[in-house]
Amino acid sequence: MRIIGVDPGLRNLGWGVIEAEGSRMVHVANGICHSDSAAPLAIRLQQLFRGLCAVIAEHAPEAAAIEETFVNRDGQGTLKLGQARGVALLALAEAGLAPGEYAPNTVKKAVVGTGHAAKGQIAHMIGHYFPGVKTAGADAADALAIAICHSHHTGPGAARIAAALRAAG
Amino acid sequence: MRIIGVDPGLRNLGWGVIEAEGSRMVHVANGICHSDSAAPLAIRLQQLFRGLCAVIAEHAPEAAAIEETFVNRDGQGTLKLGQARGVALLALAEAGLAPGEYAPNTVKKAVVGTGHAAKGQIAHMIGHYFPGVKTAGADAADALAIAICHSHHTGPGAARIAAALRAAG
Repeated sequence: MRIIGVDPGLRNLGWGVIEAEGSRMVHVANGICHSDSAAPLAIRLQQLFRGLCAVIAEHAPEAAAIEETFVNRDGQGTLKLGQARGVALLALAEAGLAPGEYAPNTVKKAVVGTGHAAKGQIAHMIGHYFPGVKTAGADAADALAIAICHSHHTGPGAARIAAALRAAG
Repeated sequence: MRIIGVDPGLRNLGWGVIEAEGSRMVHVANGICHSDSAAPLAIRLQQLFRGLCAVIAEHAPEAAAIEETFVNRDGQGTLKLGQARGVALLALAEAGLAPGEYAPNTVKKAVVGTGHAAKGQIAHMIGHYFPGVKTAGADAADALAIAICHSHHTGPGAARIAAALRAAG
C-alpha cells in the first residue's frame, strides 16, 4: 500500500510517500511544499493546496495520514497552522483519500519507540528506515514518520473513515 | 460591484452576496453552508469548500471579504475555525477573488456605527439595509455585514492584493 504522510505548516508543508507491504517499507519520495510569505494569505493557501495536489497526482498514494495539530497558547500560530491544515485535508479528500490523524507523540512512538523523542531523533530514525535517502528537511522527515506511523495503524477506524468518504462521493 | 462576504465556521459557514454601486446597496442572496458534524474532518472541510464554490459559481461575485478570526485561549476552537477559514479562503482564491479581511469590530463599526455591537444588532441593521430580506441565520447576517464593510473599504490595499492574485495566475 502506498501511503502519503503530511506535516502541515503555512510556510513549509512537509510530505513523504512510502510503499508498505506488511512490515517492509520502501521510500518513494519526500519533499516540502512552500508558500510565498510575501503573498496574501489566500494565495499562500492556494500555493500549498496546488502543490500538495500535484504531489498526490504524481505519486498516487492509496492511503494518507496527517499529524494532529499541537494546540498551545499561541492563538495566532494555531490559526495559521489550522488554515494550512484545512487545505491539506481538503487536498487529500479531493483525491478520495481518508487521512488518518495521529498525535505527535504517537508518531514519535511508532518511529523512535518513545513519545518524547526530539526532532533530530526522527530524522535520524528515518535514515535508519531508509538508508541512503535524503530528506528535503525536518518537515519532510516528519511527514515520512507520519506515513510510517499510519502503516502501523490500519484497522476498523481507517475502514470506517474510508466508508464515509465513499458514501460522500 | 458584486461582493460576497464570508463568515467561516466548521459547522456553519455564512455567506452573503450584495450588489454595491457607490453608496447604494442591493441584496442578492445569502445562506449558510453546513457540514455534517458526524463526518470525518476532511469530509466536513470538503463539504464547506464545495458548498462555497457552488455559491460563487451561482452568484459570480467580483469581490470578496472575510472576517478576521478572533483568536482566544480556546486552542481547539481556534484550530477548527482556522481549518474552515483555510478552505473558505482557498475557494475564493480558486475563483480568482482576492478577499479583503476585516476585524469583527471593523465590520460592526461599518454596519452598526460602533465596534461594540451585539450579534442581534448586526441582524437588526441588516434588516434596515435590506428591508424585507430574510437571512438564513446569524452567520448569514454577519456575512452580509462583512460584504457591506468591504464596500466601504476599497482602495490601494484591495488593488495591491488583486494585482498579486493576477500575478499568481
